[in-house]
Amino acid sequence: MGKKIVIVGGVAAGPKAACRVKRLLPDAEVTIIDQDNLISYGGCGIPYYVSGDVADDSALRSTSFHVVRDENYFQNFKGIKTLTSTEVLSIDRARKTIEARNGLTGSTGTIAYDTLMLATGSRPNILPIPGVDLDGVFTVSNLHKAIAIKERIAKGQVGKAVVIGGGAIGIEMAEAFTDLWGVETTLIEFQSQLLPKIVDWPMAAVLCKHLRDKNVTVHLQEGATEILGRDGRVVGVRTKTRDLEADLVIMATGVRPRSELAQQAGLQVSKSGGIVVNQRMQTSDPDIYAAGDCVEIPHLLTGRSFYAPLGSLANREGRVAGDNMAGIPTTFTGGVGSFIMKAFDVCIAATGLSLETARAEGYDADVSLTAPADRAHFFPSQGIVCCMMVFDRRTRKVLGLQAVGPMNDSISARIDAAAAYLTKGADIDDFANLEMAYAPPFSSAIDTINAAAYVAGNICDGRLRTIDLGQFLEWMDDLSRHPDWIVLDVRHPQQAAPFVEKFGKGLWLSLPDSEIRQRYQELPQDKNMIIFCNAGSRSYEVQVFLDSIGVKNNIVLSGGFNVLKRMGASWLP
Amino acid sequence: MGKKIVIVGGVAAGPKAACRVKRLLPDAEVTIIDQDNLISYGGCGIPYYVSGDVADDSALRSTSFHVVRDENYFQNFKGIKTLTSTEVLSIDRARKTIEARNGLTGSTGTIAYDTLMLATGSRPNILPIPGVDLDGVFTVSNLHKAIAIKERIAKGQVGKAVVIGGGAIGIEMAEAFTDLWGVETTLIEFQSQLLPKIVDWPMAAVLCKHLRDKNVTVHLQEGATEILGRDGRVVGVRTKTRDLEADLVIMATGVRPRSELAQQAGLQVSKSGGIVVNQRMQTSDPDIYAAGDCVEIPHLLTGRSFYAPLGSLANREGRVAGDNMAGIPTTFTGGVGSFIMKAFDVCIAATGLSLETARAEGYDADVSLTAPADRAHFFPSQGIVCCMMVFDRRTRKVLGLQAVGPMNDSISARIDAAAAYLTKGADIDDFANLEMAYAPPFSSAIDTINAAAYVAGNICDGRLRTIDLGQFLEWMDDLSRHPDWIVLDVRHPQQAAPFVEKFGKGLWLSLPDSEIRQRYQELPQDKNMIIFCNAGSRSYEVQVFLDSIGVKNNIVLSGGFNVLKRMGASWLP
Repeated sequence: MGKKIVIVGGVAAGPKAACRVKRLLPDAEVTIIDQDNLISYGGCGIPYYVSGDVADDSALRSTSFHVVRDENYFQNFKGIKTLTSTEVLSIDRARKTIEARNGLTGSTGTIAYDTLMLATGSRPNILPIPGVDLDGVFTVSNLHKAIAIKERIAKGQVGKAVVIGGGAIGIEMAEAFTDLWGVETTLIEFQSQLLPKIVDWPMAAVLCKHLRDKNVTVHLQEGATEILGRDGRVVGVRTKTRDLEADLVIMATGVRPRSELAQQAGLQVSKSGGIVVNQRMQTSDPDIYAAGDCVEIPHLLTGRSFYAPLGSLANREGRVAGDNMAGIPTTFTGGVGSFIMKAFDVCIAATGLSLETARAEGYDADVSLTAPADRAHFFPSQGIVCCMMVFDRRTRKVLGLQAVGPMNDSISARIDAAAAYLTKGADIDDFANLEMAYAPPFSSAIDTINAAAYVAGNICDGRLRTIDLGQFLEWMDDLSRHPDWIVLDVRHPQQAAPFVEKFGKGLWLSLPDSEIRQRYQELPQDKNMIIFCNAGSRSYEVQVFLDSIGVKNNIVLSGGFNVLKRMGASWLP
Repeated sequence: MGKKIVIVGGVAAGPKAACRVKRLLPDAEVTIIDQDNLISYGGCGIPYYVSGDVADDSALRSTSFHVVRDENYFQNFKGIKTLTSTEVLSIDRARKTIEARNGLTGSTGTIAYDTLMLATGSRPNILPIPGVDLDGVFTVSNLHKAIAIKERIAKGQVGKAVVIGGGAIGIEMAEAFTDLWGVETTLIEFQSQLLPKIVDWPMAAVLCKHLRDKNVTVHLQEGATEILGRDGRVVGVRTKTRDLEADLVIMATGVRPRSELAQQAGLQVSKSGGIVVNQRMQTSDPDIYAAGDCVEIPHLLTGRSFYAPLGSLANREGRVAGDNMAGIPTTFTGGVGSFIMKAFDVCIAATGLSLETARAEGYDADVSLTAPADRAHFFPSQGIVCCMMVFDRRTRKVLGLQAVGPMNDSISARIDAAAAYLTKGADIDDFANLEMAYAPPFSSAIDTINAAAYVAGNICDGRLRTIDLGQFLEWMDDLSRHPDWIVLDVRHPQQAAPFVEKFGKGLWLSLPDSEIRQRYQELPQDKNMIIFCNAGSRSYEVQVFLDSIGVKNNIVLSGGFNVLKRMGASWLP
């Protein structure tokens, strides 16, 4: 027999590495061990299984040609042995063996390896609050939980649900409950925005409004302090502010690496628990590899390690681990944090660094906020994308791109292209000329990504002066903050009319851009004018003109009404 | 007054440059001159106007905020003067003046410039055959023609149409006629495939089948030899093979740069007629710029110049011209030939070089042909993408990506990401690890682009031996060519059954991959086995296994049934 390769973990990185190494070294003896009886499933599909989009859990465990990936599949199709319901207790690195226990029989045994791979995945964070063990409180951490959740809903046992955590999984679960099952769902998030650290707050605000429009109740800055129960069953969730009724509670408060086995074996593990690997996915013991949700990977922009528990990365990392276990020296150099999700009719996505993260990392970061049409504006199905491009003023490097918009092709192409470009160190000028494929059904002649770079360049070069959106909103919430501010609305007078009516001419002045070259003398000289239009580009045009005639008391609200409308605000007429 | 900037051409590059330069130099005196009375329109939208998707031609000439871009618009919104219906007759470079004639009044005059820009666009190729001047023969070269075409159809004057030319515009026009107007449409293409030079033949074959399925009659390798008329009106098109009836003929046989003005002025013009510019869009006279369909641009992969008449590039080039005319030294470094189009329910796209072009350019080029699911295979709306990744075996650089598949988000993200990556010189291993944003509604955990790179790597490293698709099809058309060949169908026996029934076991052997490890002794030793499955990946798995046990008389058909079915073949059961 050939090399003995033992892989601990059978969901994503493990099976990928196993199949790859077996193809490269057909005579290797490859064994996958997993503590669960269900293996090699698409965990990212769980929300769609719960919603009913995916009818049957076996679909998540099947190949594209409809064969269930169980022990027999791996044996017959791949020549790989799998030990399911088997927990690995310890690693003896000196002897190159592992100790494992069969969860069904209780028997233990020792298995020798030449090369070991840890693909032990993640475990969900459980809040340290009372009531987390009540019946009806679930994490979304494996297929068994998913089956149990769906069963309860399908049996009509769930009228109200509370989701704790406004990350991707929490939002996807809230959609699944509300959209297809009509469950009254409340989502609470401890931070002041949804998707914290992933997107900046304006993008999250657009998402939040959409969730609320779709009947998900969202409470931000509200953590769960207790899970309430009766007779051992969950009945609600307590926050600092209120008690929420619930027949079902989802705890989606993030995951952390499952690295105890590695730790016990004395392998290097990061402060936050990720197994440390080099670019060949080798741990600090060269005979032990690791990949997937249990490792940290280098961030290709910051140069630091980060934690990116995603099925897509797990597969790519697993393949590189497989290569190296077979003696082929390929490398996985790291990631840039690409993210995308569907939430009802909206898609939100990001790659690279958010503005908040970029500044925390020490970059001289700024952002362009744009809201262009996602395809030729004359094309019938066109929609609006809200887009933020984060860049470093010093180097002009683009650090990140985020967007929220229609649930079609408008977002993914921009994010994926940006991910590729970012990875190669592209700057604002590269993005301005990026050759996005163009035809009216797909994009604008000036693509979203080009437009974002144009604006970024104008900001960077000091040609466009913008007001911070947060500062603008604070003022609108309390106009007494800046008595010398006024909005100059350059849209069509009919569009401006409701605003002028609500706020008065002293605060909201309508002067369309078509007339600005004739009527600029009417503008107030003792006020700071915030120029306002639909997307920001006409405001910029007006700013340039006003500057040129010496009227400099003006500043542009980037993104304009397109963004404000989608974020929502109580003061909007 | 400031600098006098005169721009000849008012469709895409011209207006873009004019607006940009006017923002950068507000006191510049900017004049756009165009021989037409309609300017600044989305020419790429013409097929959608003809089809009726875009109801009104003014939509093509309007801004996203519904203002028609006419002379008044440019004056009032932009401070730019426009002279329409005005033809520029000549340039006097020594005096820095142009001579122009008003087409309405016939009066001529001289206009001085400090900086001149040529955005004279393209003109359609007209075949040198009899009958091209008949009433009812149209090119799709400007909005007036589009209006005339639509009028004829809307009046019910067109029962049958012939489109000459199987490029993007010809195909889009054929769709417009057939899909929305029910016109009986025949498309003829002189070359042996649609979209010649843009995509390789297998992609074009998928497109061609789809057009035929949608009731467009397509004749390949058939050029028009004469346009037939009666009483001055078109009645048909003659080819070497047949006469085709037609009430309307579209000549969509490509365009060429409109560079006579530049040529007459002694500016450097390429052999194929494109105005030669440097990266700052300057012609051989530093006071004269040029951009858009009248120039050639550097190809970022081949290092040669190429002609890419696209509205998107025209805008990007125009902006760079505008920058430089205003004294800002930005550069347009070139393009990679990104292309995308809708054809009924299918999207086809490409970036970089096709295999044919890459080989003609001298690369040691090869290709991976894959046909994966475009999103998580359990997700309800998943479809199949046919994808070709072209790479250089010597350097492992990826040279191009092409794909054809569902008319949704599956294709554009892959092409745009590839364009960005190609531009930065990415190789197969970069593409294997490209971090495409993943969630089940958008992509597979192993993205189309990653999978294409995996297969490319396996081919490059000699791990995967594939049969050329063309060679396979030739054999299926004439089985006597290779009496020692046999197909080994490793799909489910039910899928293989119709093939086995049609061709017999001696030619089409069914042995599913799940049983290959047990039953490989049944395989013939005196035949060359072409391993066949749905997409190619299971065939590769079987090849690896057979190789490992010393059975080497096998070769994989990449893309498998997924590609064959979409290309169509008379022999398919």
